[in-house]
Amino acid sequence: MPRFKDAVISLTTDFGVEDPYVGVMKGVILTVNPEATIVDLSHGIPSHDVLAGALAVLSSCEYFPANTIHVAVVDPGVGSERRPILAITEKYAFLGPDNGVFAPVLRRIKPIDTLHLTEERYFRSPVSQTFHGRDVFASVAAHLSLGTPPEMFGRTIEDLLPLEWPLPRTIDKQRISGQVLRVDKFGNLTTNISAEDLAQSRISRWSIIIRIGNHSITRMCLSYAEAPPGEPFGIIGSSGLLEISVNQASAASRLGVGKGQPLELAARDWLHPG
Amino acid sequence: MPRFKDAVISLTTDFGVEDPYVGVMKGVILTVNPEATIVDLSHGIPSHDVLAGALAVLSSCEYFPANTIHVAVVDPGVGSERRPILAITEKYAFLGPDNGVFAPVLRRIKPIDTLHLTEERYFRSPVSQTFHGRDVFASVAAHLSLGTPPEMFGRTIEDLLPLEWPLPRTIDKQRISGQVLRVDKFGNLTTNISAEDLAQSRISRWSIIIRIGNHSITRMCLSYAEAPPGEPFGIIGSSGLLEISVNQASAASRLGVGKGQPLELAARDWLHPG
Amino acid sequence: MPRFKDAVISLTTDFGVEDPYVGVMKGVILTVNPEATIVDLSHGIPSHDVLAGALAVLSSCEYFPANTIHVAVVDPGVGSERRPILAITEKYAFLGPDNGVFAPVLRRIKPIDTLHLTEERYFRSPVSQTFHGRDVFASVAAHLSLGTPPEMFGRTIEDLLPLEWPLPRTIDKQRISGQVLRVDKFGNLTTNISAEDLAQSRISRWSIIIRIGNHSITRMCLSYAEAPPGEPFGIIGSSGLLEISVNQASAASRLGVGKGQPLELAARDWLHPG
Repeated sequence: MPRFKDAVISLTTDFGVEDPYVGVMKGVILTVNPEATIVDLSHGIPSHDVLAGALAVLSSCEYFPANTIHVAVVDPGVGSERRPILAITEKYAFLGPDNGVFAPVLRRIKPIDTLHLTEERYFRSPVSQTFHGRDVFASVAAHLSLGTPPEMFGRTIEDLLPLEWPLPRTIDKQRISGQVLRVDKFGNLTTNISAEDLAQSRISRWSIIIRIGNHSITRMCLSYAEAPPGEPFGIIGSSGLLEISVNQASAASRLGVGKGQPLELAARDWLHPG
Repeated sequence: MPRFKDAVISLTTDFGVEDPYVGVMKGVILTVNPEATIVDLSHGIPSHDVLAGALAVLSSCEYFPANTIHVAVVDPGVGSERRPILAITEKYAFLGPDNGVFAPVLRRIKPIDTLHLTEERYFRSPVSQTFHGRDVFASVAAHLSLGTPPEMFGRTIEDLLPLEWPLPRTIDKQRISGQVLRVDKFGNLTTNISAEDLAQSRISRWSIIIRIGNHSITRMCLSYAEAPPGEPFGIIGSSGLLEISVNQASAASRLGVGKGQPLELAARDWLHPG
Repeated sequence: MPRFKDAVISLTTDFGVEDPYVGVMKGVILTVNPEATIVDLSHGIPSHDVLAGALAVLSSCEYFPANTIHVAVVDPGVGSERRPILAITEKYAFLGPDNGVFAPVLRRIKPIDTLHLTEERYFRSPVSQTFHGRDVFASVAAHLSLGTPPEMFGRTIEDLLPLEWPLPRTIDKQRISGQVLRVDKFGNLTTNISAEDLAQSRISRWSIIIRIGNHSITRMCLSYAEAPPGEPFGIIGSSGLLEISVNQASAASRLGVGKGQPLELAARDWLHPG
């Protein structure tokens, strides 16, 4: 089993950066391991939005060094029976609540072992029932980064909670339906349809039609700058997912759509045969 | 007197994270001490709100490693006669303006010495009269973290400015009045009434009534998840203070109240005798 | 030519802190150089606002240690023909798109060499056409901080893109016109008129009149606290530029003006001769 001595610790939470919660987690980590390297992945996850947290981890974790400990605290069930878990893969450790926040990433990267964190001696004491980010996850992450073997923290479990994840649906070779997973700061719409989904269909870059809201988009671009100003287009974004964008403007505002919005891709010749 | 060589430097300001002010403070610290470890505690203190800054430091500082240098720059009097100060306790250093921002924490943790920072050779030069966070506090924090003895930075003072702090009021053994100190990102209302205040009263968890706005709350929970959705409840939060919360929703929105809102706790049998 | 081994890497972007983009850049940097020291300068640059990014770098970079690598990713032309560049000065490296974001700082600090980044072996592979912050700039910054000589990254160029920068205009010895460059979190209005511009004019601190919107301001202060509450005044801010401020309130709200607002300074005796 891999160890995580001197690993980077990445933090993903729905805590925001206004309150001192994230700072306190870092204080706890540095109390246990003064040499820890801590990186904020995102603290802008909408409150209690496990799916958004799962997406942030899924789309970002592999840009981190081997051995990174990815901590995700989007934890509406804190203090309930939901288990704190540690999943170990060949390259990374994932540490957070068992509420599905790691389900998508662990479908892509198979875990070697998954543990229910039961060894309370690695927790801060007493454990608050409202802030496991501080008392459980920060503390365990720090101990892990000191080189404590993963198997010391608890016992193996097999029944991780799944996450209801909105998968795209291949209607036929020429049609895929999906939805908007995220709107970023620029107003780009990240969908759940990947470059692979498109490659496996008969929808080509040159013949695509994207129906979203009451808009039809027929342009696919390779870069934002390639598009004429003001016109929405499709693009494979930096994490390999189809995005709807507008050059130097917000596609969300321009199209009047947001997270959860359904969309459909089709080959134009399917729609207008002949 | 303790020294602070290799100490963590925590930063609390009302600068926000949009402007480059915090980044510049870090640049100054690293110029003096390239090995410094810097942690953001919070930069979301409302502009000029010394009490909010004091609360952030009070509720968070003890989660940091021994020897941490806690810098707080909420400084409406920058450039005036208000003194820059350094308070040394057994475990921590506190560095900021003498405007009461450390008064609550220094009531809890008695300082060994408190210094008026007068030794300008430890300041950046020239000192701007609008940004002591950069030219005084960042620079002194960095020198302190190099191991410079605290007494080198100035001369002992005894007359720190106090802070008007809203204390809870025990009306009788069965009634306490208080107020909302802070609304966090989740809409939780942190009050100024502590678990100790409750323990010293005859108000029990099982007989409590919390009057806030035109609402009466009779439920106390041990975790957010324990409460039925949508129903406000009281809970002892992670910093030991009574909070009013709603499971997966904003208590502030639900109750229509905000910072400064008065509330009263009572034993139910007092209100409905017999 | 200077080297940048163990240099601090500062990051300025328009990515915000809600999305994981900045975290991913840090993951890439730490993958290449696990010892890198990374400082956020600002991620609050308005989307696509190259001038605001240029101003953040210009006003902040010199507070960082010698050898700092300043990375600025405000990059509306990402994926187009715009070149990725590395400018080397005596003291700093500047790394980002060739869109003018470094033009103002390189007018003040003359570069020893400027390179077009062409050596793709220092990029992450494959290079996304929408996120050079991750695949080009983070990766090159990290290699630079490992000690790779700057000249290894590309070939010298001389024709950097300029930036249309709003310079103040000296109308005559007693009048200067300018504009508001930035509104900060406190509502202070930073103008493009510097302390030097004022010193070279015949407008004195005691006789100044500042016309902005339909307001006339006649007070110059040395600190915020010096001003009576509620009254707007001029002040030389911490970066040497004239600011319009209100003590403990927002000058932007009080005066009803924002970024781009023109203003004019004059000597009062010019306006009211005799």
